[in-house]
Amino acid sequence: MDDGKIYGAVEIGGTKIICALGRKDGTVLEKVRFPTLPPADSVPKILEFFEGRGIASLCAGSFGPIDLRPGPSYGTILACPREAWSQYPLGKTLEESLGVPAVIDSDVNVACMGEARFGAGKGKQNVLYITVGTGIGIGIVIDGKPLHGLLHPEGGHTRVTRHPDDRMASVCRFHPDCAEGMASGPAVGRRCSMSGESIPDDDPVWEIEAFYLAQLVRNCMQIVSPNVVVMGGGVMERMSLFPMIRKGVREQLGGHYVFQESSDLDTYIVPSSLGGEQALKGCLAMAADTFGHPPSRF
Amino acid sequence: MDDGKIYGAVEIGGTKIICALGRKDGTVLEKVRFPTLPPADSVPKILEFFEGRGIASLCAGSFGPIDLRPGPSYGTILACPREAWSQYPLGKTLEESLGVPAVIDSDVNVACMGEARFGAGKGKQNVLYITVGTGIGIGIVIDGKPLHGLLHPEGGHTRVTRHPDDRMASVCRFHPDCAEGMASGPAVGRRCSMSGESIPDDDPVWEIEAFYLAQLVRNCMQIVSPNVVVMGGGVMERMSLFPMIRKGVREQLGGHYVFQESSDLDTYIVPSSLGGEQALKGCLAMAADTFGHPPSRF
Repeated sequence: MDDGKIYGAVEIGGTKIICALGRKDGTVLEKVRFPTLPPADSVPKILEFFEGRGIASLCAGSFGPIDLRPGPSYGTILACPREAWSQYPLGKTLEESLGVPAVIDSDVNVACMGEARFGAGKGKQNVLYITVGTGIGIGIVIDGKPLHGLLHPEGGHTRVTRHPDDRMASVCRFHPDCAEGMASGPAVGRRCSMSGESIPDDDPVWEIEAFYLAQLVRNCMQIVSPNVVVMGGGVMERMSLFPMIRKGVREQLGGHYVFQESSDLDTYIVPSSLGGEQALKGCLAMAADTFGHPPSRF
Repeated sequence: MDDGKIYGAVEIGGTKIICALGRKDGTVLEKVRFPTLPPADSVPKILEFFEGRGIASLCAGSFGPIDLRPGPSYGTILACPREAWSQYPLGKTLEESLGVPAVIDSDVNVACMGEARFGAGKGKQNVLYITVGTGIGIGIVIDGKPLHGLLHPEGGHTRVTRHPDDRMASVCRFHPDCAEGMASGPAVGRRCSMSGESIPDDDPVWEIEAFYLAQLVRNCMQIVSPNVVVMGGGVMERMSLFPMIRKGVREQLGGHYVFQESSDLDTYIVPSSLGGEQALKGCLAMAADTFGHPPSRF
């Protein structure tokens, strides 16, 4: 599957940026990471990493929301909490500075692409990825392509019904009732007044966490009908959450939606499988997809 | 856009079946309707209508769930409340009896295709259709193709948070808390002890109805990011619901997701536009798509 070319991958997260060189088959050859600062500081470092390295094209997955409409605004980061990045023309800057095609997508769509192409979603038509970390995000890849429309999925902000024992205020600044507000890493931390890693497996907080995440998985299953749900991110490193989420989903489905893969939730709701490199590998795949078939974006 | 061929369309609903002949451009030339009875009674009528009419291919949209996996079970209706139809091999029967390619999909996916190709979603990349009637269903068409995966969307069964003034039990036999159970036509009827048509526009029941439907639209928007949300079905003939749903969605989004089309919800959440023929027109389009490009299903 390797085509001998070198592709670029960039993962832009809330706290760190990772740049990598790699192959079409997802092999990461070299990578660097540095903290996420305003674009005036961070983007020169990205460009410096790739300059003179002979990449054929590159793909960046970033926090969003991101304008993905074909045209001059393609790849522009929209109004977001990181104000220095709001309205930053990421796609145009990378493409013009490096002189190669640049694909931009949400950090979760590229992670989903990594899982769909090389990981837990390999061979599946419809792959849904949920990351639960500093925020909650959803990526969707159908028939090998990331899902787009008005924007990209922003499903971490879907509504959840409050747990009867949970009095905590949402940590989302937009929504008193969304999955991210009630079940992201910071929500777990606020609920326990301690960092998630320190909380024992049998703490009741995980029941509440699984209650919210099961709602999110159920709603995604019923709307998108994925062939597999892959869950990653820092909070999902707590492996004891998986059986709790599966149990919650099974109870919530009420026997309605048991068919094929979903009848065995152990293989339907699964951990991410690429050792934290799903986003970089997804970027490599998307960069390679673009090369030779450049979309008419600009 | 017409190719001179005649295509077949079949809409199989809970109470009635409609068969039509038509063109690739969505023109319905002739149609008949009869009540939905068990397949032993209904399917011969469907076959009789199409026999000898020279159709090039046909498409049926049916209540589901439906097995859409390529292979011998393609187009089989799965376990469903209408027991006589459970496990009925609709696709195989139509194809073998009529000797032409038969495409099968959910009733809501074909309706969405009608709107995407010819109606309120024309020219949009990502179209989501919600029907609110005897049940609540969701159809999704992306890049001109209906969304599939494990099955097809079954988003009417997503969870909604109960309205604080609503004590009514869900009408869904699977879920105490789903959109269909709380906001379908039968739910409205149970809440008011009268049929929906008789209830005045200013009855508080519509506030409750809009509260649930706004949650459903919000969750669909955030997960699928459609370019337009088209709403049809008997309950949505109550046009006064549209501004109430838009208001609810705007409040729930909390300023988070205002961009392009969504910033003008009047043109983003819109009524169906094809006079009740969206499913038949969608079937004609899908039948024509299949002709000449037969999927390797059997």
